[in-house]
Amino acid sequence: MRRSTRRRGSGAPTIALPLASEREELPLYAQLYQNIREHILSGSLAAGATIPSARTMAADLRLSRNTIEAALGLLVEDGFVTRRVGAGTVVADVRDLASLAPRWRRAPAPATPARDPLLTEPAAPPAPLSARGARLAAAGLAERDADHRGLPTTVDVTKFPLGEWNRLLARASRERGLRALQSGDPQGDRALRRAVAEHVRLARGVRCTADQVLIVNSTQQALDLTSRLLLAAGDLVLVEEPGYPSARAVFTAGGATVSGLPVDRHGARTDRLEEFPGTRMLYLTPSHQFPLGVTLTLRRRMAALAWARAHGAWIVEDDYDSEFRYDGRPIAALQGLDRHGRVLYIGTFNKVLFPGLRLAYLIVPEALADSYTSARRLTDGGSPPNVQTALAAFIRSGHFAAHLRRMRLHYRTRRDALVRRLTALGDAIRLGASDTGLHLVAHLADGVDDERLAAAGAGFGLGIAPLSNYFAEHRAGEPVPRGLLLTFGASSIAEIGAGAAAFSPLLRPPRAAARRATRAPSP
Amino acid sequence: MRRSTRRRGSGAPTIALPLASEREELPLYAQLYQNIREHILSGSLAAGATIPSARTMAADLRLSRNTIEAALGLLVEDGFVTRRVGAGTVVADVRDLASLAPRWRRAPAPATPARDPLLTEPAAPPAPLSARGARLAAAGLAERDADHRGLPTTVDVTKFPLGEWNRLLARASRERGLRALQSGDPQGDRALRRAVAEHVRLARGVRCTADQVLIVNSTQQALDLTSRLLLAAGDLVLVEEPGYPSARAVFTAGGATVSGLPVDRHGARTDRLEEFPGTRMLYLTPSHQFPLGVTLTLRRRMAALAWARAHGAWIVEDDYDSEFRYDGRPIAALQGLDRHGRVLYIGTFNKVLFPGLRLAYLIVPEALADSYTSARRLTDGGSPPNVQTALAAFIRSGHFAAHLRRMRLHYRTRRDALVRRLTALGDAIRLGASDTGLHLVAHLADGVDDERLAAAGAGFGLGIAPLSNYFAEHRAGEPVPRGLLLTFGASSIAEIGAGAAAFSPLLRPPRAAARRATRAPSP
Repeated sequence: MRRSTRRRGSGAPTIALPLASEREELPLYAQLYQNIREHILSGSLAAGATIPSARTMAADLRLSRNTIEAALGLLVEDGFVTRRVGAGTVVADVRDLASLAPRWRRAPAPATPARDPLLTEPAAPPAPLSARGARLAAAGLAERDADHRGLPTTVDVTKFPLGEWNRLLARASRERGLRALQSGDPQGDRALRRAVAEHVRLARGVRCTADQVLIVNSTQQALDLTSRLLLAAGDLVLVEEPGYPSARAVFTAGGATVSGLPVDRHGARTDRLEEFPGTRMLYLTPSHQFPLGVTLTLRRRMAALAWARAHGAWIVEDDYDSEFRYDGRPIAALQGLDRHGRVLYIGTFNKVLFPGLRLAYLIVPEALADSYTSARRLTDGGSPPNVQTALAAFIRSGHFAAHLRRMRLHYRTRRDALVRRLTALGDAIRLGASDTGLHLVAHLADGVDDERLAAAGAGFGLGIAPLSNYFAEHRAGEPVPRGLLLTFGASSIAEIGAGAAAFSPLLRPPRAAARRATRAPSP
Repeated sequence: MRRSTRRRGSGAPTIALPLASEREELPLYAQLYQNIREHILSGSLAAGATIPSARTMAADLRLSRNTIEAALGLLVEDGFVTRRVGAGTVVADVRDLASLAPRWRRAPAPATPARDPLLTEPAAPPAPLSARGARLAAAGLAERDADHRGLPTTVDVTKFPLGEWNRLLARASRERGLRALQSGDPQGDRALRRAVAEHVRLARGVRCTADQVLIVNSTQQALDLTSRLLLAAGDLVLVEEPGYPSARAVFTAGGATVSGLPVDRHGARTDRLEEFPGTRMLYLTPSHQFPLGVTLTLRRRMAALAWARAHGAWIVEDDYDSEFRYDGRPIAALQGLDRHGRVLYIGTFNKVLFPGLRLAYLIVPEALADSYTSARRLTDGGSPPNVQTALAAFIRSGHFAAHLRRMRLHYRTRRDALVRRLTALGDAIRLGASDTGLHLVAHLADGVDDERLAAAGAGFGLGIAPLSNYFAEHRAGEPVPRGLLLTFGASSIAEIGAGAAAFSPLLRPPRAAARRATRAPSP
């Protein structure tokens, strides 16, 4: 129930206490102080106006005189009103107050603005975003919705040596003392950049020095910096089709015109790059194409590099999960073949260690390192130095390599379990490559509704998403390839078994239907 | 000394070992493998070409036959060459290799690309940055250079309760378990957003709910997101003159046209806003103007809000250090007076706790919260969840308030010491406001070379920068106000005393000169 002073004439404002639900457990005198102060600041109680007497307010608001006096005392002290015997309580001219000096600790503003319709006009709707802002927000919003329908957690964080990590983190702050607490080099901690350079040189065949390494928060930040520095609005960017939606989204958000480069079993069709004149940048996942899982052949790699060199175009190589290679020897990075500084290489620790770490890296041609660092300094300031120091120690001490080995084995058993289950389904599905990473694709016959299947399968404890969602450009008349992305990283073997068992019956009917359509019925 | 095979005819490539300095302690066979592989991939050893015999290479390179055989063995195994008795060692057609499968762990690529002039052509210079990229990089580069000449560390991190913090951080990962290791809400950890909302409501008079709070890495990131979402290229932005160079830089980098709004002793001249038609955004430091230290009066606050409402413009309120208020009651935030959702409020933990923390916050009108969150999701992904959880616990448990109280006293003694020393200089300088924050301004007479003075004073252990550097727009004919920014946060009282004592003589001559110029010489 709201308590308020009587309306006294049409012009007089209503002095009121907020509704009980809005009070936030403030003392009553503070609420009253707040309310009168609002009226004065908003002008509804103008300079020279008289405030109802303490006795009147006490009666109207059903408050004690003490409460009223406490509120008025504060208002006097803060210069909002003056009280003189005979003249009553008069509103001061506050326009010249040198500063607002409210009793914030005693009387904070209500939590929710503009709840009291008597106190303020409804807030005007904020002006719309700028065109580029709207593009950015829309792309990010689409990403959120994609997350919701798409792949859940793919990384198993339960195996991460958290105790060891926390020990290194505490030591990093202690040992580096003040330095670890200060803001660091926006390019990244030198020790970590060295460790990254060594890691990618040895494990991925990347050619670089620590000076070319930029520590960033995430692959997304690496892509965003790249888009902002190297692209102009309207530039043509090619991404793989099907491809990684977040990459497409960040280029779109940056104002680029994005087109899809088809992918076949040899990887992206870099042999067809000349069909896309004027292309400024090409986004590739050469080691383990997302989502199809195929590897870009050497011929296609060479074609991409020759094209980039001939046209002065950029290649962004997103090497997002090739640490988890289960069969055969690792595929070297495309960057290692580049002799003309056209490749920007991105790797991440957020999958290998844990997603909440927020550390990834970008390796750029030497001539661009300063520009990237400048952009990072200005737009963000750099990643936390103590976490970077801890990670450098984690790598140097061999914990990183040990964790990688452990996780490779761990994920491999999951992959094996899933592949075994899927193989048992026979020709209802065709399995894509599964030698690397934390997901695989089960291809379905054309026309099967993979969205429906994925939705139906979502309840079975498997990470599952329809392949058709990763095709951004549907050409009229052409069927969209159908399939299911299945993630196995965060599932136990038992979950995989149970999930696949529950899911299998859903896969069979379309196969039967497809068979009926293509073969004569067997007698 | 470089060892290489003899050149055999003009077309044959030189098989060589890298120079000793470039070897990175790889075994010799690995270096040789690497070199030959490079030749094959670059095409300088074409398919069908014959490689010198093992004996020839051993002699030319002064290596053992075992070393040569080890390298050739690897090349055969990887499919780069074939060896047949009689035919010798022949280069394979590698264009169809399904993948590059180098012996990376045994033979990494040299650290520095293109060092060997015989091996590769010089790398083509990368194509230039896009126009917006160049603008971004240039603004960031200017910032770096400004850092170098400007204010050193202003925050004393030695008093931070690091042990307690590390304990909370470890507990955050343990208690929240998997969740703290996963990537979190890009808007920010809910518990931290609640704690921030409560803190700014009580301590700063900000009107908000946790839904309006966005956790970001830094003030710079808050400004950058704001520029990207709310501004179009070419939009007019007003910043204070003199003002915070990093804010000006980030708006400039975003393509805005930036103008200066003069500041006097009542703060920014918001009474003159109508002189800047078409302004889309106004950047203010109302509680403690940077760098002058003055407070925006209530009249000017009201003028700014009325202007923003009338024109649908935005006000960015950067409340960067008002936690450190030494005299009088805290100045409430401008945001708390806004009833029309025109103010974006920025606060930071990087000054109050430690700069390496990389956590700040942005409080936006409710209608914009989703757009900001979307932009953050897409361009970065969010701040580390475990650090956010730890900070929420740090605030809830009272450590934050206790640390604030401690630091307020700590910095206050430093401020007192500096003010005492400066006051003793008499009228050589005029002291600006020093009731808040970690710096103060000592105004000098017009024409005094404050850049020279600041450079001369840099050696005395005081954080010092010339005031004139913070004026971005010099009008011809008008003298630039001169003064010195002095930071005291990271200095001991002894350092302040010694620094000021050493510095004082430098300040006196200009005063004497100024006196001579304005007064008749005394007899």
